[in-house]
Amino acid sequence: MNVLEEVEAIRQLKYRYLRAVDCKLWDLLASTFAVDAVSAYDSGKNAYVGRDAIVAWLRNAMENQVVTMHQVHHPEIELTSPTTARGTWYLEDRVINDGPKLPEMPAHSILFGTAYYSDEYVKRDGQWQISKTGYERIYVEIRPFEKPAVFQSRWAGR
Amino acid sequence: MNVLEEVEAIRQLKYRYLRAVDCKLWDLLASTFAVDAVSAYDSGKNAYVGRDAIVAWLRNAMENQVVTMHQVHHPEIELTSPTTARGTWYLEDRVINDGPKLPEMPAHSILFGTAYYSDEYVKRDGQWQISKTGYERIYVEIRPFEKPAVFQSRWAGR
Amino acid sequence: MNVLEEVEAIRQLKYRYLRAVDCKLWDLLASTFAVDAVSAYDSGKNAYVGRDAIVAWLRNAMENQVVTMHQVHHPEIELTSPTTARGTWYLEDRVINDGPKLPEMPAHSILFGTAYYSDEYVKRDGQWQISKTGYERIYVEIRPFEKPAVFQSRWAGR
Repeated sequence: MNVLEEVEAIRQLKYRYLRAVDCKLWDLLASTFAVDAVSAYDSGKNAYVGRDAIVAWLRNAMENQVVTMHQVHHPEIELTSPTTARGTWYLEDRVINDGPKLPEMPAHSILFGTAYYSDEYVKRDGQWQISKTGYERIYVEIRPFEKPAVFQSRWAGR
Repeated sequence: MNVLEEVEAIRQLKYRYLRAVDCKLWDLLASTFAVDAVSAYDSGKNAYVGRDAIVAWLRNAMENQVVTMHQVHHPEIELTSPTTARGTWYLEDRVINDGPKLPEMPAHSILFGTAYYSDEYVKRDGQWQISKTGYERIYVEIRPFEKPAVFQSRWAGR
Repeated sequence: MNVLEEVEAIRQLKYRYLRAVDCKLWDLLASTFAVDAVSAYDSGKNAYVGRDAIVAWLRNAMENQVVTMHQVHHPEIELTSPTTARGTWYLEDRVINDGPKLPEMPAHSILFGTAYYSDEYVKRDGQWQISKTGYERIYVEIRPFEKPAVFQSRWAGR
């Protein structure tokens, strides 16, 4: 086992996961989770068990007209065995809801926040997957979203 | 060939390229492109052929009083041969134009956006260079820039 | 010496340092500096000599109700000997002071900025530490902080 190669593979797994979230690629998203993965997003508030439940919740929260940015930084990844690892990441996220009220967002609002992810990963059939994920907020704020003169997104059709 | 060493060299190439853009180091910027590089910035809108044309366009867009932030994250880089590679990156950019109208920006405006870069790289004479670069927007917005009480930049002379 | 392993260790050192700053973990913060480290934050304005002086200044600036985000990107790290290295990083920072006036911030204000860090690192007793750190601003702005309807942070008790 080359530790650096495994760490690089885990980093790319996390990047693929967030590319799937922000580009709304739900099949790609599902492929990044272990079938028995568990989540604890938002300081444990959004806890789900199993890949299908996690992906369904993410899809429901992100679909529609919502524009999201989820970028993670500062990976501190450590192998705990040849096929298991854990890692922390520093999240910056932004969610623009320029539509009606959603489960997590008021109508026409924008969320900014930061958080620390604590993840666990497992390697099965030669592929790393997310087995546990969740984050603790540093801070989060939600403000009214005042649409500017120029606002273009891949989804909002403007 | 050590794959991880090549990937690290490509990452540092991209970082050097963006340091050159935001610090307005035009010679350093030119050195990061292959002489026959092609660009397709902003979902293909700003397509140029050849290092000189790309650098001239970037320089024209970024020079003057404009303050920019171009930060890239989430590198998913893959070698396609010992001397070629491709990669995606997640961009967050900010452009502050606290002056008159520019080709791409209204007077006194600020741009925020995110995008996914798709790049290609080539290794010549032992050095990696950008052979193809471009991005697809996730979203972009432009708002009026209201200058705050404290605003200092390396270029704006305040 | 495996260069990539040393570079990865230095990256994780920097990430640990910034996790300590934003999570207000002062003992962890102290452990990231060499005892004889020197600082030149904010284009040399905040220059301190010795671990204790640096940590005391950071602690004083960050403690209380202040919410901070310090994220670094684009590491260009180079070993200058088996036990010394230097590196540049691209900082994006945000400081929310939703309280009274502080040494560096007006009451109820928010700072946004970017900068390039130039660091030096030293390996002692098998551990990399920061021996010199400082940054040159690209830009910085401070605006009034208008508290939104939703504002939650780990420290502000709301």
